[in-house]
Amino acid sequence: MSAARKFVTLEGRFAMHRGGHLESPTLAYETWGALNEARDNAILVFSGLSPSAHAASSEDDPSPGWWEDMIGSGLPLDSDAFFIICVNSLGSCFGSTGPASVNPETGDVYRLDFPVLTLEDVAEAAYGVVRRLGIERLHTVVGCSMGGMSGLAYCVRHPEAVRAFVSISSAARALPLSIAVRSLQREMIRRDPKWQNGDYDPEDPPITGQRLARKLGMITYRSAVEWEQRFGRERTASEDHPGDPFGVEFSVESYLENHAEKFTGSFDPNCYLYLSRASDLFDLAEHGGSVEAGLRRLKLERTLVIGVTTDILFPPHQQRELAVGIEAVCPNMRYVELDCIRGHDSFLVEMDAFRPVICEFFESCG
Amino acid sequence: MSAARKFVTLEGRFAMHRGGHLESPTLAYETWGALNEARDNAILVFSGLSPSAHAASSEDDPSPGWWEDMIGSGLPLDSDAFFIICVNSLGSCFGSTGPASVNPETGDVYRLDFPVLTLEDVAEAAYGVVRRLGIERLHTVVGCSMGGMSGLAYCVRHPEAVRAFVSISSAARALPLSIAVRSLQREMIRRDPKWQNGDYDPEDPPITGQRLARKLGMITYRSAVEWEQRFGRERTASEDHPGDPFGVEFSVESYLENHAEKFTGSFDPNCYLYLSRASDLFDLAEHGGSVEAGLRRLKLERTLVIGVTTDILFPPHQQRELAVGIEAVCPNMRYVELDCIRGHDSFLVEMDAFRPVICEFFESCG
Repeated sequence: MSAARKFVTLEGRFAMHRGGHLESPTLAYETWGALNEARDNAILVFSGLSPSAHAASSEDDPSPGWWEDMIGSGLPLDSDAFFIICVNSLGSCFGSTGPASVNPETGDVYRLDFPVLTLEDVAEAAYGVVRRLGIERLHTVVGCSMGGMSGLAYCVRHPEAVRAFVSISSAARALPLSIAVRSLQREMIRRDPKWQNGDYDPEDPPITGQRLARKLGMITYRSAVEWEQRFGRERTASEDHPGDPFGVEFSVESYLENHAEKFTGSFDPNCYLYLSRASDLFDLAEHGGSVEAGLRRLKLERTLVIGVTTDILFPPHQQRELAVGIEAVCPNMRYVELDCIRGHDSFLVEMDAFRPVICEFFESCG
Repeated sequence: MSAARKFVTLEGRFAMHRGGHLESPTLAYETWGALNEARDNAILVFSGLSPSAHAASSEDDPSPGWWEDMIGSGLPLDSDAFFIICVNSLGSCFGSTGPASVNPETGDVYRLDFPVLTLEDVAEAAYGVVRRLGIERLHTVVGCSMGGMSGLAYCVRHPEAVRAFVSISSAARALPLSIAVRSLQREMIRRDPKWQNGDYDPEDPPITGQRLARKLGMITYRSAVEWEQRFGRERTASEDHPGDPFGVEFSVESYLENHAEKFTGSFDPNCYLYLSRASDLFDLAEHGGSVEAGLRRLKLERTLVIGVTTDILFPPHQQRELAVGIEAVCPNMRYVELDCIRGHDSFLVEMDAFRPVICEFFESCG
């Protein structure tokens, strides 16, 4: 376990947004920088579906984080000026309570007894951590992908507790294409005979389903243009695959194979299912009757919305809609559409494009 | 069996493009209209991966075909003026020899003993049918999706035997995104325990893998925009699914479910694997060293290239490349990019957009 990881237990009954509750859930989080005396320099970062709270390295944990080039001394989320917090999402499996945790009320692992998870719950759990850290009002909430939706949930439920919001490749609600993709990913896992309706052997999890789901993920996280430039019709080194007429032959196939290999085993399948479903369920319109009404509840001083032209999962037209919607209620809004070729994943890999935009946002802060 | 379906057996050894052979393969085909005395009014239609030769209804088989509104009396492919032929692709399972057929040399079903299939083989088998029908030179080859690549293979291997070519939502070679999607579809079937390395029980085929593959197909055949307009975040009638936190809840999920249901059972899994792989393997550059060199072998008097703006599998930029490439060698080229919202499948469902373009092409024929 990483020395940088800290824990907060939210004592008592944690009521879930769609019903049911968790008894005293634990949240894992990491921080960078120091909270100032006024307690007004805190930035909360919501991750996408799969990362842990380890967004960046620190003295206590020098291993690179998932947003290593974005958080730290002299970086856009500057730990010299800000106190940056990243909470492992409720429902995940990197220290926070989720379907793979033991239910203290029964002594058994939750598995499918975990109540329906929503991004409102993810937001509420993070809010609990922030309050425990003694922060009344965040300088900024930053959310990437699913984290942008969790961030919106945070802002709409606690409008007085956030001054600014940065949405990166996210949305006010999931579109049917994304729902279809995630639904199919979940089905791949659920149809794996080893899933056992959620009661899989932890030593023998539904790896096959997880690998397929991860490959579909990679297909939708990246873009056709990137792969065309990167792989074209290049073959793998070992073109011979005797006896298997359908083996890996093209470089793009071996790339997917390697990515599936890396991911599988690191993420609990039931946690994945719950978080994936939570992404589908999110709809800002539930907060007020329409997306517009939901947005009207926000009390943000400044916002930044970033989209990527080649993103097929959270496409540019959805980014523009979100930006226009926010601007109508929070005029100090900036929308930036980056022409990166790496699709939805660009915020993780195209740092040279993202850094200046985010840097400028924080540098121009009052 | 349909009374409209006819058969040709190509007697003797049919040498396959990548090695191996088939002994006297059979090809199923249907025709509409009559061959004129000059034998110069024949149109050959290559289908996408999954359809049969039943492209349209006829007196002998009044059931609607897969391109019902395109082929027939007074329609763009006008059976009053043309003799239209559609051949079930070699390797398919609707009357033509494929992996589900009995190998006459062994008496056993081919299954994975079927040699590697390429679209050159599909083209060559269709060429055999055309020759058997006494046609030296086709008026036009029309190919949709995979069929466009089969059509290109036909034109490049028998340049003197084709006057005109119509490519619809197709390509000169498969791109890595399409390869990745198809590779994953194949893996879904191959990972289904019931696939049994191709030796599945015909009464108990790998339905689960096939259903998953079909759903991924639907996701890539359609478009985000269509689904947004059509489904939005609409729920299915029965929102309650007690005991299954991951059941069908959104309309888009139930739509995919219904489509998977319809398709599965009608297509042999091994045939699907072979045809899917054949699509990946096609590369016009193999005919001369580069796509350009391949195109220079064509001797087409007229061509029409149609692409669709929302197609993610054969995207517009690939259509434009093909059009520009063809125009360089066959100046009488017309490129039309249709602004249909139904993605790759538009040629099957957006008839009002496609008909006028194809109609004009044939009406203006000399």
